[in-house]
Amino acid sequence: MTRRNPSGAAVLQPAITEAIVEAVLDEMAEFGYARLSMEAVAKRAGVSKSALYRRWSSKQQMALAVLADFSVGQAAAPDTGSLRGDVRQTLEAVTRWLSHPRFSRILPDLIAEMARTPELSELVESMIGRPRREHGAAILRRAIDRGELAPDTDIDIALDLIAAPVYWRLTIRDGEAEPGYLDKLTDVLMRALGA
Amino acid sequence: MTRRNPSGAAVLQPAITEAIVEAVLDEMAEFGYARLSMEAVAKRAGVSKSALYRRWSSKQQMALAVLADFSVGQAAAPDTGSLRGDVRQTLEAVTRWLSHPRFSRILPDLIAEMARTPELSELVESMIGRPRREHGAAILRRAIDRGELAPDTDIDIALDLIAAPVYWRLTIRDGEAEPGYLDKLTDVLMRALGA
Repeated sequence: MTRRNPSGAAVLQPAITEAIVEAVLDEMAEFGYARLSMEAVAKRAGVSKSALYRRWSSKQQMALAVLADFSVGQAAAPDTGSLRGDVRQTLEAVTRWLSHPRFSRILPDLIAEMARTPELSELVESMIGRPRREHGAAILRRAIDRGELAPDTDIDIALDLIAAPVYWRLTIRDGEAEPGYLDKLTDVLMRALGA
Repeated sequence: MTRRNPSGAAVLQPAITEAIVEAVLDEMAEFGYARLSMEAVAKRAGVSKSALYRRWSSKQQMALAVLADFSVGQAAAPDTGSLRGDVRQTLEAVTRWLSHPRFSRILPDLIAEMARTPELSELVESMIGRPRREHGAAILRRAIDRGELAPDTDIDIALDLIAAPVYWRLTIRDGEAEPGYLDKLTDVLMRALGA
């Protein structure tokens, strides 16, 4: 997690950090990013506002660090030895990420806020989008090395194609991504990638 | 567009309806669905609130009718004679729909609101999602009839796959869907569908 370096003898206690992280997720799930405030987070976590500012310099830094830690931590990095195995596990990890009780309520609001705030959009891209895509790209590059994918595979389109249908089904269509659906989607994606 | 039947001798003037529709789109693009109000729309359109209530019974009915009219009107119903041609034109239509200056600002907020309001989510599904998917399904069924697709093609997954990557790229990743991208995506989708 991105944190400010403790100055002087200050030590950041992990238990307090953990309480703050939980409070940030609770507050965002309940009220959305726009209405998140340092005051409300401090109150919910039972800590002082200075405990927050010792860790992050602003509400934006705090929210993004917590969401990045959660989201990048949930990114799959499977190495099953086959592209099919890795894609199937990645789809499961994307499904878990997007259907997490709090995060599934946080994400649509965050995306709406990103559409209004280009700076937030860039931070989400650099702190969440790009690190997650690097995990996915590693899977595809290994499949190229094994000869399962053509060397000129368009990695960018391939990554869109793996994440987007699950997001579309879970968030936009308010549907479910049950195991049978993920199996069928894996088949379709393997054909799409020319594997 | 879904409208109440005029009672007695009342006649709905198209020019007034048009002014109201523009005002609804402007207000939603600027302030979002949650803060949309009949008062503000009436004021912006330069009409009385009763002119709105003669057409729709509530803010929700008004917003959904306007968005459905716009969105279903933008749904592609190409019949080029080949699946590839139809998919390519559909991707272009989806791109136009999602990158429309006002609608691209309305949609993320609407989706965030849908996550909070199951009733709204159901209305969007029945008034926008399902009619749009029926256009797409017709394209796929014609391709099955021509022998371009297997009869057991999973239409539901196929439709997710056509719309989702463009949405993901334009709205979540804040990217662009230039013609070269749509060409490459068409190739990938043709493989995915086994065409």
